[in-house]
Amino acid sequence: MDLVKNFQFSRILSNSTDSKKIYLLGTIDSQNAIVAIEKVAFDLDPKSLSDYKSLGIDQLRLLDINDVYSWNMATLIQNIDSNPAAKVNVIYPASDTHIKKYQESKPRYIVETPELYQKYVAPYVESMRGDRIKWVHQILFKGTEAERVLTRVDEDPSGRNGTFVLLPDLKWDRKTLETLYLIAISIKDIASIRDLTEAHIPMLESIRDKIYATVYEKYGLEPSQLKIYVHYQPSYYHFHIHVTHVQLQQNDFGRSIFLDSVIEQLRHLGPEGFSKATLTYLLSDTHDLWTNGFSKELR
Amino acid sequence: MDLVKNFQFSRILSNSTDSKKIYLLGTIDSQNAIVAIEKVAFDLDPKSLSDYKSLGIDQLRLLDINDVYSWNMATLIQNIDSNPAAKVNVIYPASDTHIKKYQESKPRYIVETPELYQKYVAPYVESMRGDRIKWVHQILFKGTEAERVLTRVDEDPSGRNGTFVLLPDLKWDRKTLETLYLIAISIKDIASIRDLTEAHIPMLESIRDKIYATVYEKYGLEPSQLKIYVHYQPSYYHFHIHVTHVQLQQNDFGRSIFLDSVIEQLRHLGPEGFSKATLTYLLSDTHDLWTNGFSKELR
Repeated sequence: MDLVKNFQFSRILSNSTDSKKIYLLGTIDSQNAIVAIEKVAFDLDPKSLSDYKSLGIDQLRLLDINDVYSWNMATLIQNIDSNPAAKVNVIYPASDTHIKKYQESKPRYIVETPELYQKYVAPYVESMRGDRIKWVHQILFKGTEAERVLTRVDEDPSGRNGTFVLLPDLKWDRKTLETLYLIAISIKDIASIRDLTEAHIPMLESIRDKIYATVYEKYGLEPSQLKIYVHYQPSYYHFHIHVTHVQLQQNDFGRSIFLDSVIEQLRHLGPEGFSKATLTYLLSDTHDLWTNGFSKELR
Repeated sequence: MDLVKNFQFSRILSNSTDSKKIYLLGTIDSQNAIVAIEKVAFDLDPKSLSDYKSLGIDQLRLLDINDVYSWNMATLIQNIDSNPAAKVNVIYPASDTHIKKYQESKPRYIVETPELYQKYVAPYVESMRGDRIKWVHQILFKGTEAERVLTRVDEDPSGRNGTFVLLPDLKWDRKTLETLYLIAISIKDIASIRDLTEAHIPMLESIRDKIYATVYEKYGLEPSQLKIYVHYQPSYYHFHIHVTHVQLQQNDFGRSIFLDSVIEQLRHLGPEGFSKATLTYLLSDTHDLWTNGFSKELR
């Protein structure tokens, strides 16, 4: 069945004007379906470029000129086989989880004091461990996804407990260096940065240094070409570290903290570490912690 | 003269695959010119949407199906007058400054110790003050741009020295609430967060609280709907604070720090404040501090 041609629109789930991508909810044969349309990026080969037609511009309409600046609208040359204009992805049938995932959410700015952590976040974290992170334990202790593992450090010869498993993130194509994305999962059982104290500094430094050594050896990237950071709130509550190429574009401010900044803050936070700190970050207003917690406390 | 039609391509300056925008350098009539092509975002009116043609999809080609997911390529319906596919901006003649501005730069990850700050950054900051920030002093003390000023706090009745001028950033259209962008410029002469100590906490809290009160009064936005943050490295060395709507999308991780996080860190850094801290951030590899400084020291 030709899914797209049978799609009947219901509502717009989200529309990113920056990345030119739109998610639409509708039905196909009276079942829920999601259609995502994303314009394709420019993929021009410098060797074949000369005049404006070679740039893919078809028609032009001048809007305005001011000094050295001028503005036009254009249509672009397109061809369904050799030069398509958009990717169209379909999820059918779409579950409620799919719909919630692509539904536009608004971030909220959170000031999480130690008291708010105890009241709302600690019980939430507890509920998100156990079975919810069984897949992490499978990777760490049962050999699941072993063929993807880049490095496994089960014992730290330096005695600093820097034990972890390093593997490519599923978002990475495992080819393009500029979009490199790895995850280092701590073997030690830590839920999030809230559990870290100055006692963890040697462990974190040891993991960081081994990540640098591994990535340099395997991919030739220097420390200044990498972002090594953690998320708060993370998407799962077993401590893990994100390792990406410095050029990977993400809209990540307000959730990501460089591992070096975590270590630096631990140096000054004293023996109780982040358990006594106030953490500030962005959180989606569809997140359970907002709807069932912070929304009652914060303006 | 029809500028675009006379453009002769030389090289690609930068290509953002995320925002589908490309900057090209070339010549028009043997003078340098820059052509920027950006695909337009989806602008669909839910009321007029029904089947796939109404979504703007013309032809379709199925690539793959896996379980509930399927992938297609498409051409899109376009019309130079009513439904153009791209914006085409031209800068002609283009100066070297224009070219440098749109030339792709790669970020580098910087670990700035107090020693590296003293060796490279402190002299750089010195060179960037004086005449380079005369325009800030014009705003603060000479009444320049007075008609744009939203609030001016010259004396802090609470005795905490929270004096500042709040005005809209030039990037804001001053209409769209979701893209609100204001700048609070400190009246007190501080170059950057490196100069802040625990003695500044009352001042920073007073500025923050006045920003919250002003933005709530003028725009009805609550604290959880705002991002209040500083940049390091900043683009000019007179202390200023960014205030944006929480939904404003920016690729800002690695340069921005929430003001609340600055205050929290100051609580733990002791009497010497950030002057004794190690700061980690991203910096463009075309920035003078990288080319003339950090590139000699950091891998």
